[in-house]
Amino acid sequence: MRMELTSLTTIPEIRPGDNLGALIRQAAEQENQVIDEAVIVVVAQKVVSKAEGAIVDLRKLHPSPLAQTWARDWQKDPRLLELVLMQTRRIVRMDRGVLIVEMPTGLVCANAGVDQSNVESPDFATILPKDPDTSARLLRSNLGCGAVVITDTFGRPLREGLVDVAIGVSGLAPLEDLRGRTDRYGRKLIGTVMAAADQIAAAAGLLMPKHAGCPVVLIRGCSWQKSEESARLLTRDPSTDLFR
Amino acid sequence: MRMELTSLTTIPEIRPGDNLGALIRQAAEQENQVIDEAVIVVVAQKVVSKAEGAIVDLRKLHPSPLAQTWARDWQKDPRLLELVLMQTRRIVRMDRGVLIVEMPTGLVCANAGVDQSNVESPDFATILPKDPDTSARLLRSNLGCGAVVITDTFGRPLREGLVDVAIGVSGLAPLEDLRGRTDRYGRKLIGTVMAAADQIAAAAGLLMPKHAGCPVVLIRGCSWQKSEESARLLTRDPSTDLFR
Repeated sequence: MRMELTSLTTIPEIRPGDNLGALIRQAAEQENQVIDEAVIVVVAQKVVSKAEGAIVDLRKLHPSPLAQTWARDWQKDPRLLELVLMQTRRIVRMDRGVLIVEMPTGLVCANAGVDQSNVESPDFATILPKDPDTSARLLRSNLGCGAVVITDTFGRPLREGLVDVAIGVSGLAPLEDLRGRTDRYGRKLIGTVMAAADQIAAAAGLLMPKHAGCPVVLIRGCSWQKSEESARLLTRDPSTDLFR
Repeated sequence: MRMELTSLTTIPEIRPGDNLGALIRQAAEQENQVIDEAVIVVVAQKVVSKAEGAIVDLRKLHPSPLAQTWARDWQKDPRLLELVLMQTRRIVRMDRGVLIVEMPTGLVCANAGVDQSNVESPDFATILPKDPDTSARLLRSNLGCGAVVITDTFGRPLREGLVDVAIGVSGLAPLEDLRGRTDRYGRKLIGTVMAAADQIAAAAGLLMPKHAGCPVVLIRGCSWQKSEESARLLTRDPSTDLFR
């Protein structure tokens, strides 16, 4: 088996209202890359958020006392914390300067995905796309590709370092269930459900270093299970999570 | 940027004492794949364990009362549980049939990496290589490649599904520190330490489905930070872990 990942290097700066799909198609054409049903297109959340206008002017926010206290204690911008709390359904951890929250979509991540990297002015921050599965589905139909994965960069319990994970998918099963299949000795594989979309996100992440401005990666030669399921399946239910 | 992953499909069944490096070289040659300094070789733990004889005859184990009780309560093989406890320095979670332990290397994982998939007889199970970094270093010098990553398949807190992670590395920095670099607006990237080795493991994992018997993947076109650091850097220190 052979798999090939190519990052598009000519995606322009994305602004609110831009047709991201059209800009990806243009970049691909310019770089002689074919996008068809055999291709998975992986897109960094940042450009999806920018295109969808999921950018917030921090000067318009009024930090709550909680945001102000936490900002003072940990030398942070209270407006950013207010924005995090606005995206929060439940606080999972709030300790040692780290704020890990559950968002209305169920997604658990640090700072609710609020981020200022690759944003023009310190008075602005991006938030996650409102419905990343829908963003992925629209991009997929615009691009005519086999599947779309929208990724963000997350920290992890137990392990150091950040990895890219899937926050929105279209066209592929986020979880690939191998239960019932057998290994090379005919033994049933037990409990083998692979987080395929997260592995795809991590693979593409290798070609999306934060300082390089390459927010789109095309993957060819990767087999996947077709599906219209949501990336929400990747969020562990608190009732089965021994670490919640 | 363009990255290419190729799985070797002609690796034979590995037995204790086999020269894994030589078998990988033979398979690569047969498949017309060049292994040189530009290549990262990713190897599944299972074949490393087999070659190193890290296979245990369960019939020789005497399950402790703890192993027996847990096995009875959750319909498991008490001998397997005894083997898990033998690899355990500390129990992190033991709940609802799931046993997550800290191993002497600091690695935290379910069942201490004890596994029966792709093992010939139900009376045997593999354990993790004793020192995966050393295994990686020996393979790297045997193969003459740029870097080696040894992977295993782990579950995760907060997110569903398994992903492949790096348990041993040689020649590449397991964590890639982008702090101090700037984004496209000249803003310093804060706290951006990528788990590069885990992203490489996950990428290769896409070509190593458990039922396919493809335990070796060659990666070309992936840039990496050269380093002789240990994969242990990927294990989060309990003092910085809000989920321990």
